[in-house]
Amino acid sequence: MDASKVRALARGCAVLGSGGGGDPGLGLAMALLAIAEQGPVDVVDVAALDAGRLVMPCGMVGAPSVADERMWNGAEGNILRDVVERVHDRPVGALMCVGIGGANGLLPVTWAARTGLPLLDADGMGRTFSRLGRQAMSLAGVPMSPVVLTDGCGNTLLLDAADDAWAEHLAEGAAARLGGVCAGALCCMSGERARGAVIPGSLSLAVRLGEAMGTASIAGRLAGIREALDAVVLIQGTVVDLERQAEAGVARGSLTIRGSRRDARRQLRLELQSEFLLAIEDGVVCAAAPDLICVLALDTGEPISSERLRYGQAVAVIAAPAPPVWHGGPGLQLAGPRAFGYDVDHTPLGAEAAGHA
Amino acid sequence: MDASKVRALARGCAVLGSGGGGDPGLGLAMALLAIAEQGPVDVVDVAALDAGRLVMPCGMVGAPSVADERMWNGAEGNILRDVVERVHDRPVGALMCVGIGGANGLLPVTWAARTGLPLLDADGMGRTFSRLGRQAMSLAGVPMSPVVLTDGCGNTLLLDAADDAWAEHLAEGAAARLGGVCAGALCCMSGERARGAVIPGSLSLAVRLGEAMGTASIAGRLAGIREALDAVVLIQGTVVDLERQAEAGVARGSLTIRGSRRDARRQLRLELQSEFLLAIEDGVVCAAAPDLICVLALDTGEPISSERLRYGQAVAVIAAPAPPVWHGGPGLQLAGPRAFGYDVDHTPLGAEAAGHA
Repeated sequence: MDASKVRALARGCAVLGSGGGGDPGLGLAMALLAIAEQGPVDVVDVAALDAGRLVMPCGMVGAPSVADERMWNGAEGNILRDVVERVHDRPVGALMCVGIGGANGLLPVTWAARTGLPLLDADGMGRTFSRLGRQAMSLAGVPMSPVVLTDGCGNTLLLDAADDAWAEHLAEGAAARLGGVCAGALCCMSGERARGAVIPGSLSLAVRLGEAMGTASIAGRLAGIREALDAVVLIQGTVVDLERQAEAGVARGSLTIRGSRRDARRQLRLELQSEFLLAIEDGVVCAAAPDLICVLALDTGEPISSERLRYGQAVAVIAAPAPPVWHGGPGLQLAGPRAFGYDVDHTPLGAEAAGHA
Repeated sequence: MDASKVRALARGCAVLGSGGGGDPGLGLAMALLAIAEQGPVDVVDVAALDAGRLVMPCGMVGAPSVADERMWNGAEGNILRDVVERVHDRPVGALMCVGIGGANGLLPVTWAARTGLPLLDADGMGRTFSRLGRQAMSLAGVPMSPVVLTDGCGNTLLLDAADDAWAEHLAEGAAARLGGVCAGALCCMSGERARGAVIPGSLSLAVRLGEAMGTASIAGRLAGIREALDAVVLIQGTVVDLERQAEAGVARGSLTIRGSRRDARRQLRLELQSEFLLAIEDGVVCAAAPDLICVLALDTGEPISSERLRYGQAVAVIAAPAPPVWHGGPGLQLAGPRAFGYDVDHTPLGAEAAGHA
C-alpha cells in the first residue's frame, strides 16, 4: 500500500466511519509520513495468512473527539506488538484494523509501516462502532482479552478480563485515565482462527471506495459510493435541526434534514451516538445500525463526521448494507438498534421502500 | 503467626491506620479462616531475606469505605504472585504489607497463608496512607511499576507506567472500574534491594502494640499504646463538631473534640482525609502527618476509623511519631502536611509543648 492507495483508503474510511471513528485526516498524515520513511506497507489476503502466526487487531480506544486533537508518536504499534508477542509467546504475523472506519482505518497503516509487518486485508467491524466490543471476532468466539493498551508515552496496560464486557469496561476506563484515548490491541488470534472470524476484504473495499470517489462532481461521488457499497441515497437537502451532547466521550444526538427541490416536503431524521445509527422518515425506520449511514457535504463531496455537522449544511445522506456477519441474530444483538438503546427492530435497507410500494 | 498473634495484629493495625486503611475486622476474619485452613504464617526478618528472591508488597487499592463492605475470596494473593513471577521471571520469596494500618495489615496475612509464602516483618508506610504512592520504597528509588491489580474474580491488570504518579493515577482508575477497590502488588524488588528500602519491624510492632492493648481498662490501653509507640495523649473529651464529605473515594473533613474534666476549656481540631492528618489546638499544629494521629473510643478502648466517627462520642486522641524515613526532606515532601494540601510545616511531636513551656 503506497501513498496514493493510502489517500484513497482515507477517503473510503471516512465513508465507512458512518459519522464516527474520528477524523481520518491526522491518521492520513501520519500514515503518509510513515510510508515515506519506511516504504509501502504489504497487504496480505486472509487466505494467504500464516496459520501459526498471530493476527493483531489494533486501533484507537477511547473518545474519537479527543483523538482528533491528539498526536500519536507512531511507535504505539511496536509497543503493542512487543507486549502481544510476550503474552502469547509467539510472533505477530500481521496487523489488522479493529474497525475500517474513520481514523481507525489509518492508524494501523502507520503501525504496520513502523513495525515492518503486513496489514491484513480485513477488519473487525466492516465499518466503525464506538464501542470496542462490537467485533466480528466476538461473534466467532474470540475473546477480547488479553487487551493491550498504550499511550505511546511510557504507559502500557495489559488487561486480562473475566469476559468481553469487563474488557470493554476496563479498557474504556484506562483510555479515560490516559487522557481520553489510547492505542489498543485486542482479540488477538492465530491466522487459522482469523480466517473464520474477521471481515475479509475491508481494506481493499475502502481503497476501492476511495478511488471510486476520486471525481470532482458530487453526482460522480455519489455514483461511485453507490456502486462500491451497493448504497442508496436516502435524501439530499439541508440540516434544519441539530442536537448533540457529549456523554462519556460519546456525542449523542439527532439531526433533521429537509429535502431540497422536488423533495422539499420530505424530512429525514438521523439518530446518532458518535456514529449515525438510525434514519427515520415519517416515523418509519428506513436505515438502521449495523448498516452504514453516511452524511456527505454537497459542496465538497466529503463525508462529514457527526462531530463536525453544522446547522444549515447542504448534505446528502446515503445508506449501505453492513457485512453479512452483522445481519444474523447474534450480529443484530451486538450491533442492531436495540444494542444502542433504540426500541425498534432492524429494518433491512430497501424494505421500507418495498413496504411503501 | 498464629491466630492469637493475628488478633493482636488486627488491634495494632487499627491504631496504625491512623483513622484510615479500612476496617481490619473483615481482614481479621479472613486471616483467621486462612490460618485455620492452611496453618500459621511464617514471618521472616528483613535481615534473613533471600537476596535473590522477590519481595512482593501487596494490599488493597482503592476506597477503604468500599473495602469495608466487600468480601475478598482469598485467592487474590495467588493471582498477584503468579503475575509478578511471570513479569519478573523469578520466584516471589515473601509477601509484604504495603501499609501496616487498617485492613491492609491483615489482607497479606490471608494471602501469605494461601500462597504458602512467608510474610516479611516490614511494610512500606509504617502506618496507612490513602494514596498508593506514599511508599518508603519510593524514597529509596524502587519504582511502583509494574503494578498488578486483580479483583480476584477474573479481572487482572498489569500496569507498566511512565512514572509513579502515572502508576497511581492508572491504578486508582482501574480500582474504580473494578467496583471501588481491588487487590494490588507494587514496588516489587529483590530481597537485597528491600533491605534498604522497606520499613523494618512493622509487623512485630503492630503485634506488640496489639498485645500491649490487651487490657480491659482504657487507662491501661492508653498506657500500652504510649509505651509501644512512644505516643502522647493529645486530649480526652467529646466530639462536638464533625464534618465529612466523600470526595473521589476519600472521606475528607474535620472534627472538633472538647476536653473533659480539667480540660473542659480545651478544644482540639483534627483534619482528616481518610486518615487523621493534622491536630490543631488554639491555631497551633500539635501533630501532623506523616506522624500518626489515632482516635480511640473511651467506652470500648478501640480505635475509631474516620468513617465511623460520630457526633457526641467520648474519645481520646493520641499521636505517635512516624518511622524515621518519613522525617527526612523527601519523606516530608511525599507525606508531610503540604503533600495533603495543608499550608503548614510539619511540627515534630512535642515541639509545640516545648514552644509553650
